[in-house]
Amino acid sequence: MSFLDLLIGKPLATSDESGERVGPAAGIPIFGLDALSSAAYGPEAALTLLIALGALGVAYIVPISTAIIILLTIVYFSYRQTIDAYPGGGGSYTVARENIGEGAGLLAAAALMIDYVLTAAVGISAGVGALVSAVPSLLPHTLALCLGILVLITLVNLRGVRETGGVFMIPTYLFVGTLLITILIGLFRALAAHGHPMPVVAPPAIPAATAMVGAWLVLKAFASGCTALTGVEAVSNGVRAFREPTSENAKKTLTVIIGLLIILLAGIAWLVKAYQIAATDPGAAGYQSVLSMLVAAVAGKGVFYFVTIGSILLVLALSANTAFADLPRLCRIIALDGYLPRSMSNRGRRLVYTEGIYVLAVLTGGLLILFGGVTDRLIPLYAVGAFLAFTLSQLGMVFHWKRVRGPHSGRYMFINGLGAFVTGITVLVVLVAKFLEGAWITVLLIPALLLLMYAVHRHYRYVSERVADSTPLDLRHFRPALVVVPIERWSVIAKKAITFALSISPEVIGLHVNCEWTEQLKKEWQEYVEKPVQEVGLAAPRLVILDSPYRYVSSPIVDYVLGLAKDDPTREIAVLIPELVEKHWYYYFLHNQRAAVMKTLLYVKGNQRIAVVNVPWYIE
Amino acid sequence: MSFLDLLIGKPLATSDESGERVGPAAGIPIFGLDALSSAAYGPEAALTLLIALGALGVAYIVPISTAIIILLTIVYFSYRQTIDAYPGGGGSYTVARENIGEGAGLLAAAALMIDYVLTAAVGISAGVGALVSAVPSLLPHTLALCLGILVLITLVNLRGVRETGGVFMIPTYLFVGTLLITILIGLFRALAAHGHPMPVVAPPAIPAATAMVGAWLVLKAFASGCTALTGVEAVSNGVRAFREPTSENAKKTLTVIIGLLIILLAGIAWLVKAYQIAATDPGAAGYQSVLSMLVAAVAGKGVFYFVTIGSILLVLALSANTAFADLPRLCRIIALDGYLPRSMSNRGRRLVYTEGIYVLAVLTGGLLILFGGVTDRLIPLYAVGAFLAFTLSQLGMVFHWKRVRGPHSGRYMFINGLGAFVTGITVLVVLVAKFLEGAWITVLLIPALLLLMYAVHRHYRYVSERVADSTPLDLRHFRPALVVVPIERWSVIAKKAITFALSISPEVIGLHVNCEWTEQLKKEWQEYVEKPVQEVGLAAPRLVILDSPYRYVSSPIVDYVLGLAKDDPTREIAVLIPELVEKHWYYYFLHNQRAAVMKTLLYVKGNQRIAVVNVPWYIE
Repeated sequence: MSFLDLLIGKPLATSDESGERVGPAAGIPIFGLDALSSAAYGPEAALTLLIALGALGVAYIVPISTAIIILLTIVYFSYRQTIDAYPGGGGSYTVARENIGEGAGLLAAAALMIDYVLTAAVGISAGVGALVSAVPSLLPHTLALCLGILVLITLVNLRGVRETGGVFMIPTYLFVGTLLITILIGLFRALAAHGHPMPVVAPPAIPAATAMVGAWLVLKAFASGCTALTGVEAVSNGVRAFREPTSENAKKTLTVIIGLLIILLAGIAWLVKAYQIAATDPGAAGYQSVLSMLVAAVAGKGVFYFVTIGSILLVLALSANTAFADLPRLCRIIALDGYLPRSMSNRGRRLVYTEGIYVLAVLTGGLLILFGGVTDRLIPLYAVGAFLAFTLSQLGMVFHWKRVRGPHSGRYMFINGLGAFVTGITVLVVLVAKFLEGAWITVLLIPALLLLMYAVHRHYRYVSERVADSTPLDLRHFRPALVVVPIERWSVIAKKAITFALSISPEVIGLHVNCEWTEQLKKEWQEYVEKPVQEVGLAAPRLVILDSPYRYVSSPIVDYVLGLAKDDPTREIAVLIPELVEKHWYYYFLHNQRAAVMKTLLYVKGNQRIAVVNVPWYIE
Repeated sequence: MSFLDLLIGKPLATSDESGERVGPAAGIPIFGLDALSSAAYGPEAALTLLIALGALGVAYIVPISTAIIILLTIVYFSYRQTIDAYPGGGGSYTVARENIGEGAGLLAAAALMIDYVLTAAVGISAGVGALVSAVPSLLPHTLALCLGILVLITLVNLRGVRETGGVFMIPTYLFVGTLLITILIGLFRALAAHGHPMPVVAPPAIPAATAMVGAWLVLKAFASGCTALTGVEAVSNGVRAFREPTSENAKKTLTVIIGLLIILLAGIAWLVKAYQIAATDPGAAGYQSVLSMLVAAVAGKGVFYFVTIGSILLVLALSANTAFADLPRLCRIIALDGYLPRSMSNRGRRLVYTEGIYVLAVLTGGLLILFGGVTDRLIPLYAVGAFLAFTLSQLGMVFHWKRVRGPHSGRYMFINGLGAFVTGITVLVVLVAKFLEGAWITVLLIPALLLLMYAVHRHYRYVSERVADSTPLDLRHFRPALVVVPIERWSVIAKKAITFALSISPEVIGLHVNCEWTEQLKKEWQEYVEKPVQEVGLAAPRLVILDSPYRYVSSPIVDYVLGLAKDDPTREIAVLIPELVEKHWYYYFLHNQRAAVMKTLLYVKGNQRIAVVNVPWYIE
């Protein structure tokens, strides 16, 4: 286990759990990474769609960003109320399930699960996008870089939450800090130059317009830009992870995160227009991210540029951490409710829900491979899940206030209702605008996940009904089992197995498939088994010889046992399988695998009354 | 099993074996394919090395081929004597082992195994070489074609020998027939044109010489050309497969095969010189096999050309069949002697040694992938193994005649001795000439295989000594096992397991890891287990509660069992593991795998006295 210890740390006892709670300073990077880093791909996603409009498109980023910021503000006030109402953690699943119903809760859960996988995938791919903008020679290795970062994040998360908080604090503050400085310098230069600053490093020329302005295109750009909102629900999910006073700390954290995000979005939009920066074609040679062009235009390609790009890379890649912290927790809650495999609620050696982390890592890796690690191809799948979860969560809050009547519940209901309404409208906009580009995948996946969760639940209920019992043991028709021992030739292994068989039951049958040792075995059986057993006054075990025209050994034995079980439908049968255990695994290949084959066949073809007994023989 | 039936045929009973024997007409394709098809790559391998000599190189093919034919004649007479002396099949392994000793036998076996793998790989790659000569657009798909043919041959061989004889007869006779016709036409035209015939389709111009004639280059060309001899031992290995009189039929077959091979080698050499055909660079664009250029020069690129190339492709690809027929048989003999895993001597459903076929298919595929399916890169690895086996086999025959003194044994000894001498010299020549190009791989592989075989043998002897026994059961210190039943909560499964445990032994311990159901289980244990057991007059089973700070369930249970075993070193312990068996495999993921984990841990950490009892519970 020492390699595992090194890789993911020594096991933690359940009692080590205290002290894993955080205040706002550590809470901002942990719960804000996803939301803040959205600033790095949200505006770019909108601008990519505006490429077709040429110079005019660049100007459209300002009204689109304004709409997104208004949306964000509404969502902020809505989520503040969720934090107050759910100090124990108000994830969309919990809120929708408790207030609207099981179906709504599972729908929110399915939407969130898809959203988390995309958060991880988009975070990583956009981070690598920043890296290849700064070092264009890495462009052909995009996918390999994405997968490498994914492995790294997975390992960090398998080590547990406390350490990840520390790992993520510096890059987050560096990211926010450098971007704020860029925005300030840019703002200053633009104002000094009366709105038309000279870029230090000129961005690529804006290509000529290839399309006319239309509502449809603007709608699509808005839908893409909405990805800037993903991740804002993280704080309300994780309220429990905050120090006392939990709700206050959580709200403070949320306020800072949303405030910073609004400044970043507004600043980027304004500078993009002032410096006339158009997006470049993603996935193609010559691609450069919008933020890379922006920082280069404002501050040149010096040390500051590389520090900024470095922090963008880190923050984007690590924003995937929100997903790695939240998806396993979400899966655990759903698993405890019986809608996902129960093993997802098992904590691993480092107090994290290991299985959820593995599932997320595999799905994220799959998405990255499928879409070649290009952010722009992932964007259309994104946002639907996030906004659907927003809507259901806020709708749940409306029902909550309806139920929990209080002095201000009318106002609260209005705010959450407004949030539900605008995010609901956004879901529709994103769905319609992005349907053909990939939103249809999300539309198919959500009901598929729902069906899966219902099927899991139904099966658990079925099994638990089948095995439930509250009656005592019934020892009236109690008789020892019939023990069957397959035997090839006489050896210490066979001897030990038969001795053990006789200790289990007075009724033992030796089972032998005809081969070159048959005659010898018959004699040995008489002398070595029958005689000593009769001497101690027991009935002598029978030796049954089976023929096998097809040279199989295991199936005649299994068939004979099944026949025995059929002949006496009340008899318990124990098949005793002697097995040689070698010191090293590679010796495995030297012995025929009959024991394993027999066990598998009995497992598949057998029934309740056939038990398999492994009697191991260790060779030192 | 119906898909397997379709693919490789219905299982054959051992009693179906009669009638799988052949006469010379069917024996020539089965045992001669490898030898005869060598004519397609042997001369070409020599010519490829002579490219550097330009026009002069083409002339050198005649003396080199003459030397090879003399070698072949000596080997022929030597092997005739082997057939007479070993009517039961005189493979190099058998002959060397019986007459020289175990080490020599295994050395021959190792050499042969490598030789067989290369036979398969070279046969397939040269066949594809013929194909891409005729259809140059297929050149980039060389490797894929090689692997496709490998799969096909593997399937044919998994179906068994009788059918393969039929499959191979037509292509072999077509191959020999078309080449003989080509040689006759060529000979006639050359004589008519006083030794300088006009080619119908001119071969590519001979490139200018880039090297001087030297003994070293000629030696290397000879060493490569010696691959034309590979496969001639097949008949003597397979004497038993012939109809009565077996030896006579086998000798007749060998004579025809060697006679045909000599005619082909001589004819090709003479025509290559007459038509001035130089080899082309293998693996590079514009590659064309020597036989392709030769047939085109003699007969043009008409129907005859494509029929000839088609038969070359078929025969070369199917020559791999010799390896597929012989390697599994060789492995079986060695496995029966205990030097290879015993499972290699098991006949499969179609009376063939399935495991050997799989091993050969995998190794051949590996070689083809490693060397890109280019024959010329495989040639240097070849021949060493074949000639080493020749030498040891014929040296064995010398010892044989020394032992079995008879009227002509002096003459016999001389012939076999001459064979051993010339092939031994050839081994050295090939080794030295080809060492750096790849023969070193063979030189490393042979001792590695030897070591492996000795290690396997040593281990089998060790195990059989350890388990051998010829003493009767000892029932004096006979007492029932201590039965341990892990239990999570009360259910029909737990109930059934405890009932079964009580039927095995009066001493049962319930083992429970602390969890949310512990208090309830304690009560249930009293009421549902202790009470009814005491009512029938037995000692009540104990319930032991274990703590688990790391949330593991399986390891505390396993540790407790190991502790029990340590506390009482004479006690047998049966760990009874209740297991839920679901109807469909995918439900497996819904249940925790504790049963499997516990079984594995007990298997790895346990000892002789700990038996594992699986009590299955089937959910219908």
